[in-house]
Amino acid sequence: MSTIEVKPEGYNYVFSPYLKPAATVKPGDEVIVYTDDAFESRIKTKDDLPAKALATAKFLNPQTGPIYIEGAEPGDTLVVKIHNIEFTRDYAVSCFIEYFGGLTSTPTTRFLQEPLEEKVWIWTLIDNGQYLYNDEIRVKIPVKPFFGTFAVAPELEAISALTPGPFGGNMDVPDVKVGNIIYLPVYNPGALFYIGDCHAAQGQGELCGVACEITAKATLTFEIIKGKSIEWPRIESPEKIMTVGSARPMEDAARIAYVELINWLFDEYGFTKAEAYELLTQVGGLYVGNMVDTTYSLVASIDKKYLKRS
Amino acid sequence: MSTIEVKPEGYNYVFSPYLKPAATVKPGDEVIVYTDDAFESRIKTKDDLPAKALATAKFLNPQTGPIYIEGAEPGDTLVVKIHNIEFTRDYAVSCFIEYFGGLTSTPTTRFLQEPLEEKVWIWTLIDNGQYLYNDEIRVKIPVKPFFGTFAVAPELEAISALTPGPFGGNMDVPDVKVGNIIYLPVYNPGALFYIGDCHAAQGQGELCGVACEITAKATLTFEIIKGKSIEWPRIESPEKIMTVGSARPMEDAARIAYVELINWLFDEYGFTKAEAYELLTQVGGLYVGNMVDTTYSLVASIDKKYLKRS
Amino acid sequence: MSTIEVKPEGYNYVFSPYLKPAATVKPGDEVIVYTDDAFESRIKTKDDLPAKALATAKFLNPQTGPIYIEGAEPGDTLVVKIHNIEFTRDYAVSCFIEYFGGLTSTPTTRFLQEPLEEKVWIWTLIDNGQYLYNDEIRVKIPVKPFFGTFAVAPELEAISALTPGPFGGNMDVPDVKVGNIIYLPVYNPGALFYIGDCHAAQGQGELCGVACEITAKATLTFEIIKGKSIEWPRIESPEKIMTVGSARPMEDAARIAYVELINWLFDEYGFTKAEAYELLTQVGGLYVGNMVDTTYSLVASIDKKYLKRS
Amino acid sequence: MSTIEVKPEGYNYVFSPYLKPAATVKPGDEVIVYTDDAFESRIKTKDDLPAKALATAKFLNPQTGPIYIEGAEPGDTLVVKIHNIEFTRDYAVSCFIEYFGGLTSTPTTRFLQEPLEEKVWIWTLIDNGQYLYNDEIRVKIPVKPFFGTFAVAPELEAISALTPGPFGGNMDVPDVKVGNIIYLPVYNPGALFYIGDCHAAQGQGELCGVACEITAKATLTFEIIKGKSIEWPRIESPEKIMTVGSARPMEDAARIAYVELINWLFDEYGFTKAEAYELLTQVGGLYVGNMVDTTYSLVASIDKKYLKRS
Repeated sequence: MSTIEVKPEGYNYVFSPYLKPAATVKPGDEVIVYTDDAFESRIKTKDDLPAKALATAKFLNPQTGPIYIEGAEPGDTLVVKIHNIEFTRDYAVSCFIEYFGGLTSTPTTRFLQEPLEEKVWIWTLIDNGQYLYNDEIRVKIPVKPFFGTFAVAPELEAISALTPGPFGGNMDVPDVKVGNIIYLPVYNPGALFYIGDCHAAQGQGELCGVACEITAKATLTFEIIKGKSIEWPRIESPEKIMTVGSARPMEDAARIAYVELINWLFDEYGFTKAEAYELLTQVGGLYVGNMVDTTYSLVASIDKKYLKRS
Repeated sequence: MSTIEVKPEGYNYVFSPYLKPAATVKPGDEVIVYTDDAFESRIKTKDDLPAKALATAKFLNPQTGPIYIEGAEPGDTLVVKIHNIEFTRDYAVSCFIEYFGGLTSTPTTRFLQEPLEEKVWIWTLIDNGQYLYNDEIRVKIPVKPFFGTFAVAPELEAISALTPGPFGGNMDVPDVKVGNIIYLPVYNPGALFYIGDCHAAQGQGELCGVACEITAKATLTFEIIKGKSIEWPRIESPEKIMTVGSARPMEDAARIAYVELINWLFDEYGFTKAEAYELLTQVGGLYVGNMVDTTYSLVASIDKKYLKRS
Repeated sequence: MSTIEVKPEGYNYVFSPYLKPAATVKPGDEVIVYTDDAFESRIKTKDDLPAKALATAKFLNPQTGPIYIEGAEPGDTLVVKIHNIEFTRDYAVSCFIEYFGGLTSTPTTRFLQEPLEEKVWIWTLIDNGQYLYNDEIRVKIPVKPFFGTFAVAPELEAISALTPGPFGGNMDVPDVKVGNIIYLPVYNPGALFYIGDCHAAQGQGELCGVACEITAKATLTFEIIKGKSIEWPRIESPEKIMTVGSARPMEDAARIAYVELINWLFDEYGFTKAEAYELLTQVGGLYVGNMVDTTYSLVASIDKKYLKRS
Repeated sequence: MSTIEVKPEGYNYVFSPYLKPAATVKPGDEVIVYTDDAFESRIKTKDDLPAKALATAKFLNPQTGPIYIEGAEPGDTLVVKIHNIEFTRDYAVSCFIEYFGGLTSTPTTRFLQEPLEEKVWIWTLIDNGQYLYNDEIRVKIPVKPFFGTFAVAPELEAISALTPGPFGGNMDVPDVKVGNIIYLPVYNPGALFYIGDCHAAQGQGELCGVACEITAKATLTFEIIKGKSIEWPRIESPEKIMTVGSARPMEDAARIAYVELINWLFDEYGFTKAEAYELLTQVGGLYVGNMVDTTYSLVASIDKKYLKRS
């Protein structure tokens, strides 16, 4: 075991099997990654309006990676634990971007209306980094850090870092946080892990499309479950098991998440699929991770206490 | 103030402005309502398979009501408090119905595949009514009673009791429970309130379409906010304010719920709409009530602690 | 057989089983109906902007009916032939209405953006009534009259005249025209037929939500197919058979329309469902009737020449 | 000008900017391409059921290309004319594949139901290649050849050959045929053109997901419009101009197609956007290309006769 720092010289903007690894690590290594914010730190004050500040940024959501994990082979499952997330600056940035977000037309849901007015919101870390504060809104909100983007390279395809999918990606799911275990399918030798888009806080849905974006340093470890494949990302917290489905329309994301959770209960907890379908009807959880990205991400869950049968 | 019992002679299957009131009450009256289960209690054992047991039931989801609330006029808001929910039998019923539910094609999402096999699940109340237990699944789940259906009559239209909408209806939202306050728009003189579909437990999404259905007796009081109109149902718990949006596809339900919550923050809590949009991005909640009904119901929320500005 | 004129004293705004018939007719009678335009003729010049002109109109899309057809019983199919459509004025009206239409957010697909600017377009009948002309657009377009709204009363429910569904309704399907036969399910004694919303012209999708709206006089006859029930509206032209599905999201409307067409080929043309599924894959037609109403209406079709097997 | 034959040694399964060109051509060159069918010709008889016949095919929909067109630069528009399509065998293949198609649940719209039964349909070319005939269905259908897949490489991303998008791709739009001109955006130097998936016939929607798939040889020429960029594919026939939008849910594809057509009328035909919105409301066409792929493709159109103003 060793400690490996991944300080990228440049960032990547696709989850791609065609890129040279930024680092190669072994299962169990302590891996320290540095991530930029979703705007490459181009927005720093409320005067840095996106249309101008991002005009020369050809792509957004820079990713650290790919990290090659030795021993990972197609058909395995990659297990990622997040041990620590530390911010590397003292403020987070949110903003309204024209034709982007949950309550505006977009290039996909395309209307003839004028865009909403753009605006930058600076959220300052206060109270020893426990809270965020914006001086217009004047409400103190708790810091709850997680990574919006968490991915492996897909098979054959190279997919924009703005997209969520079976490979993980830009899910914007707040449960990708310290203390939880994230499971991802492996499609390529080395898995080719990507990480980015740290959020100091985010509500369910990521309503305007831009959470409290911040630069960060995280400590991760990787494990591999050999010969076991999963179809979509899974998350385990101390209390719950969770599955993530990403699709449009949103009901398709819900269906994927719940079918995956039924399969998990069937494969590993001894329930028939009918029993799992019924049990989740009565005690399942289902929240919206993002309602703004190229596909929507929903999280289905069940408390572990319901997984033990009498 | 008085206590009024509403023991219906017959049930209704539409939220309709054209039906004779089952009772007339005053604001503040203690109103005790009896509700049948969604299947008119036709399913009692696991041998009562739906296709046969429901063959002669022309309509489902029987409603108690309408209850005429004196003084309610179009343009007002109806305030309903649920003080108590008591079950009137010792088991709840769930089942898989052909071509109905969240993980099967339906008459709306119509495919050529064969239906899933039907099946009845009897959940027995145990532990002094605190838990439910099914002897195949063999997991104890906590009782969390609420009303799946909670409505006023729409304007001009008469809408099936299976449908959620701006008038409330078959939302299947677990926050319609004891201790919470439900706000509904008033479209007709007397508001014409309908209630039914008590659930002893239900997960988010109501996955198979049938929660732990049970007969019940509830104690309600009504108040009227004169001259104030709302567009969609609102819910207030001790900790949160919530809005419900119902639509297809599911993202439209999410959009409605969050726009309504922004409007609430704008109207009553002193935020600009831009501030509310930003604040909900960082601390909003968004869960799925139902992913099975004629429209899907999503619940947007914010903790009350974020509504006080420094 | 006789000729019956239906000149309504007032119009209705719901497809309802609860309204008194405007007329009672026999199968085979020549029935002459007069219909107002979708705005009750409140918009007559380009200065009659909708927000003001329609401010006192509580409901839109006035319907002539219900017409009670003697002998029609639940479970039958109503057959309607349109023999003639005559306009009763010399211009049609289209307009942009705030938050209504195919390329703007609406109360259902709800965003925070400002509405599109409202505007009225007067299309004058020219060339002996063969063409329409608007003096800003300066393009001559051919008159192709049909009824946007064509319905029977639903069972139990009363549904807004703005809504399409299994009962027909506000489908905005240009094939509801002279020379074609429209089949509708019968849910109530007498069928209770409603008609309105004549369009002098309309493209596929009815893009801005308002076609060339006009007042009209039409000649219809009704027949009844006893003991045969259909689930959704069907249309027969000299060359094609067609089915209409209405739902959201739009793919659900497409699925309904094609499943109904498969069922038609199975029931009446001797194809297995698998054969029909395959044949429609290779020669089926599928166009959008409306992309603007409360549900979207899609039309699936097959040329009659493909219905004869060698 | 010269004639260049592109007989690929191997096929590609992504629209990728990372692949070595299969050929380099000049604008105006006569380019002859050979394409395999969507199943790599693995299905030849009705006994070649897909689950088995395709078991060792890791990817489907093989593409010929990329073809590098000299002089094409990002920001240009690629103009492709199809001069001839010749089949290179005497039968076409369609089939039902488990969990794939328009009337079955899929990995995206995921349900618990069993799959539809798989089945192969062989359509034999008859009558001098003018018609197709299947001996179970026993209906003669006309040959109407076109390419289901027609693409340029996206920017940065490599996208599965099963996917339609702004870059074209697997649109399954029957208007990609001889006599029509197809316009595609250029994202990469040389444009990097891909072609495949020839269909001998296909209905609107491509209902079961598999048209009359056939191997082919086509003659194309390329031109470049320098310095003019388009956002989505456009098609021009002798009578019409058309735009293609691909998205889920289907209404988003409809919105994209019509907004693009409005932009076309605005940019090149002298209409204001409001005039174009109104004109397309009255005379626009809107049909479904595919309702089965990873995104749905809709085609909006207007007859050229309406583009000349008086």
